[in-house]
Amino acid sequence: MNIVGLIHPGAMGASVGSAATHNANDVLWASHGRSPESKARAKRGNLKDCETVARMVKQSEIILSVCPPHAAEDVANEVMENGFKGIFVEGNAISPARTREIALKVQKNSATFVDGGIIGGPAWEASAGTNFYLSGPEAQTICDIFRGSPLNACVVSNEIGSASALKMVFAAYTKGTTALLTTILAVAKKEGVLANLENQWGEAFTDRTYSQVARSTAKAWRFEGEMREIAATFESAGFSGGFHEAAADIFSRLGVFKETPAQTIGEVLEELV
Amino acid sequence: MNIVGLIHPGAMGASVGSAATHNANDVLWASHGRSPESKARAKRGNLKDCETVARMVKQSEIILSVCPPHAAEDVANEVMENGFKGIFVEGNAISPARTREIALKVQKNSATFVDGGIIGGPAWEASAGTNFYLSGPEAQTICDIFRGSPLNACVVSNEIGSASALKMVFAAYTKGTTALLTTILAVAKKEGVLANLENQWGEAFTDRTYSQVARSTAKAWRFEGEMREIAATFESAGFSGGFHEAAADIFSRLGVFKETPAQTIGEVLEELV
Repeated sequence: MNIVGLIHPGAMGASVGSAATHNANDVLWASHGRSPESKARAKRGNLKDCETVARMVKQSEIILSVCPPHAAEDVANEVMENGFKGIFVEGNAISPARTREIALKVQKNSATFVDGGIIGGPAWEASAGTNFYLSGPEAQTICDIFRGSPLNACVVSNEIGSASALKMVFAAYTKGTTALLTTILAVAKKEGVLANLENQWGEAFTDRTYSQVARSTAKAWRFEGEMREIAATFESAGFSGGFHEAAADIFSRLGVFKETPAQTIGEVLEELV
Repeated sequence: MNIVGLIHPGAMGASVGSAATHNANDVLWASHGRSPESKARAKRGNLKDCETVARMVKQSEIILSVCPPHAAEDVANEVMENGFKGIFVEGNAISPARTREIALKVQKNSATFVDGGIIGGPAWEASAGTNFYLSGPEAQTICDIFRGSPLNACVVSNEIGSASALKMVFAAYTKGTTALLTTILAVAKKEGVLANLENQWGEAFTDRTYSQVARSTAKAWRFEGEMREIAATFESAGFSGGFHEAAADIFSRLGVFKETPAQTIGEVLEELV
């Protein structure tokens, strides 16, 4: 049995923290400086507030980092600066190379590092089908704290970087094609052939595409960073990062929909063309 | 009723020429310098051999250009240099901007230009579902020569460039995702997470992907040029060409499979990683 600290209870993180309560003695979070929405999610997940990250780090044997890609190093640094010596789980959508760099820093501070990659949406119910992939020598220990919870945790390998790589190659297709389809629609509109493209695609594919593209606008602002991580992953492996640099570009143009997501494809294309 | 000249009876072109025989008086081709395979296809399509392009141009009221993207200007130039004054149909997978440049040259020579874009495979049977999109003021005239044939010809608009644009945005998804999936598999193999990716995808999606990727290798050598045309189309419309520059890159690496297409995904990945 363990004490787990969660940084931070965002839409995904709160559900991960809640899943950990199935086996951990306590799952802690630090409310200092967080939004009322985070507080509400932490409450829903039965997380215990210990107010500051410093206090949380002191009490926790395991720290779960679940944050937007750009913040991964900041979170790791803050935990290490507070003298953490337990297991640090880096659960974010970042490249294997960046993961290994953070691992080195964590290990230099005599803490243990586990690589993680989450595939799927917030895991409040098992029906969400969300997988938490873990890798590294201590991956099984982390897997065990989610046993019987709505989050399916599983070990990828003993290698730090594998869980991140799996997350990257999976999202490369799902989010990559959403970005590609968004751009295709914008080019078709600009060239005056959108109605013809709809006809060629047929109703089923067109409807599915329109809903996929419109749905993505709410999260586009945080997909940009993830796309750049995928591009870096492809480049490191010796392939072109162009697909996902282009995907980052289109998602960044959709950043305006952060507060009020698009309801229709018309709104999306109005913004782009 | 018309005399139509076809340049050239490749795998696609021969079926287009054959479809034109449904309404044209004669469909001609020029055997000089062409391969035995072209001769066999021309025979299958009931095309009449007039040996040289010069003779074909003199006899034809309509010329259909169906060739790999890189050869589009050469074909148009050869036809114009032979004093053609009829309707020149540019049916190739090239960007709207390049189409408009060729149109200017054709019109300067007092010939008429029709833009075309073919979506689908060789159209020997109506069940192939292949569409020949046409645009420009004389598009309907060309449409009519395919009436009742296995090739569905239809007019997109009066604008030269529309048919090409439609071809570009459609292929942007089909061939673009094939290229993306190929690259994803290569990165996954390189990172040692291919089996995990298969599990996450599930059997149906994995099988479909493997067959799609292996099937594309035979044609990869000529997809590279088409991908660069799509990239140029995206850039002209004000979006990133990165998706299809990356697609061109991976298809160029698969060029080795031109003569002996890959039979399994293993062969493809062996070549790439």
